[in-house]
Amino acid sequence: MFRLHSRAVSLTVVGSIAFDSVRTPFGERERMLGGSAVHFALAASFFTDVRVVGPVGDDFGPGEIDVLAGRGVGTEDIERVEGGQTFFWRGHYDHDMNVAHTDDTQLNVFADFEPKLSAGSRGSDMLFLGNIQPDLQRDVREQSEAEWAALDSMNLWIETTRDPLVAAIGEVDCVLLNDAELRMLTEEPNLARAARSTMELGPSVVVAKRGEYGAVLFIEEGAFAIPGLPLEDVRDPTGAGDSFAGGFLGYLDSARSGGGHDEEALRRAMAYGSVMASFNVEDFGTERVRALDEADVHARLEEFKRLTHFEPVPA
Amino acid sequence: MFRLHSRAVSLTVVGSIAFDSVRTPFGERERMLGGSAVHFALAASFFTDVRVVGPVGDDFGPGEIDVLAGRGVGTEDIERVEGGQTFFWRGHYDHDMNVAHTDDTQLNVFADFEPKLSAGSRGSDMLFLGNIQPDLQRDVREQSEAEWAALDSMNLWIETTRDPLVAAIGEVDCVLLNDAELRMLTEEPNLARAARSTMELGPSVVVAKRGEYGAVLFIEEGAFAIPGLPLEDVRDPTGAGDSFAGGFLGYLDSARSGGGHDEEALRRAMAYGSVMASFNVEDFGTERVRALDEADVHARLEEFKRLTHFEPVPA
Repeated sequence: MFRLHSRAVSLTVVGSIAFDSVRTPFGERERMLGGSAVHFALAASFFTDVRVVGPVGDDFGPGEIDVLAGRGVGTEDIERVEGGQTFFWRGHYDHDMNVAHTDDTQLNVFADFEPKLSAGSRGSDMLFLGNIQPDLQRDVREQSEAEWAALDSMNLWIETTRDPLVAAIGEVDCVLLNDAELRMLTEEPNLARAARSTMELGPSVVVAKRGEYGAVLFIEEGAFAIPGLPLEDVRDPTGAGDSFAGGFLGYLDSARSGGGHDEEALRRAMAYGSVMASFNVEDFGTERVRALDEADVHARLEEFKRLTHFEPVPA
Repeated sequence: MFRLHSRAVSLTVVGSIAFDSVRTPFGERERMLGGSAVHFALAASFFTDVRVVGPVGDDFGPGEIDVLAGRGVGTEDIERVEGGQTFFWRGHYDHDMNVAHTDDTQLNVFADFEPKLSAGSRGSDMLFLGNIQPDLQRDVREQSEAEWAALDSMNLWIETTRDPLVAAIGEVDCVLLNDAELRMLTEEPNLARAARSTMELGPSVVVAKRGEYGAVLFIEEGAFAIPGLPLEDVRDPTGAGDSFAGGFLGYLDSARSGGGHDEEALRRAMAYGSVMASFNVEDFGTERVRALDEADVHARLEEFKRLTHFEPVPA
């Protein structure tokens, strides 16, 4: 693991821990380790210390914990609910891998989740609120002493709990959403305007995730856009957005100085997010990301540089 | 106009010359000058000498010719069909400006178009075959002495005249298509594989256009991707793909040395294509592009550089 700063930094993520059953045109898998907090934490673990907060059931065994612990992820705040079952999602993708079709969702222990942060998790300097009910996100933000917080959400919460979501957005520094969700949230069909409207709710950083097309960062100073890597083998996109967020925030946490982030670090964080998302989709579940080493991550960052680099004036 | 080389270079485009009536959420216009060859030629005229080949009717007046001639575009091969009417398209866009809805198409003089290249057009060193019937594209390619040729096409020809289109693709060096069209042409849902399959038909350069998401270049050495500029004001996307092609080929023509193109020039050409497409969409029809000057084009290229630049290692 590489750490760009030696001082203690750490990142807490609250979100789903799940078993996912996924079918794509390239195969299928039953009950893989998944969930937003898991994908996020594995990706972020390449850059900083990460702690996961979330509930699991009796079916969540030492093997699953080992996947996280094996990457140095703090699992002390994973709450085991006796007699409960872990969140379960079943879905499939057809040839358009940008669209996930949900076949079954079982909230299980997630239905009654009341996040409780330990002293260690409360003391992290950075917080990521994964895609959970907005009132829970606000509750966690309240418990946390983090200097900098980001959140993800989804169409369900925009449609059913809009006001709590807007309130939660008002309490974070950064929002990461799909471009369609940003448009839905702000009722603004133009993405640049949707991002500006979102910033008016409070956050100074807005990231629009665009699936295979990449992602766009909006800050007051302007925009940074990075395309997706045109991969020939995309086996399972589940978790790509969370891996993006993990690479983005993980790098930022490792690079931050003081309460803010300079623009150069934010741009590089977008590239690291893209790196981790590009690995995520190359195999099912967490298989590809958990098998990476530092050299793989560096090499792919260089690949993104080659993908996007041009010189405005001939050399 | 800036010319990067003083030696004689020139680019001939064959395609539609049209009147377009367009409605978008931001306004509407009746019978604007349009068509693939017009948008292409105006964009390319910022980089090289361009000649337009295509038919018009009696309704095409000196005012329309002046728009082209005013940018130095060669109009000698615009063929006036006596008693005929110019190609007409009526369409509209809803809030998703990526999708054009066609309300009316009148081929008019285009129905019986038999391209005839003058000596000057035949002698251009580069040729762009706009989106017309593939057998006409082959006929023009045959007449032309160009060292390097590119073509555009559309879903209609992929569906109705697939074999002639594949034959036409086999006779050009470069294909520019929307990503969905590349997937349809090759029956390959993965874009990188679709591009590779297209290269196996003959071309050494494949460009996937992705609307507001930007464009991807595929060559044997790898890929280059450039995102779209996140504009707050998009008034009319009609012709953006043709303006992209005009900036791309126009720049390449100005920069080329010998029969090929180096990778650095191809990347820069992608950026100039994106520049011209980004201007195209900012106003109706040709209004924005025809009003540009050299400084505008340079400034926007720098904007694309800022949009996409990151340093893999902190300075």
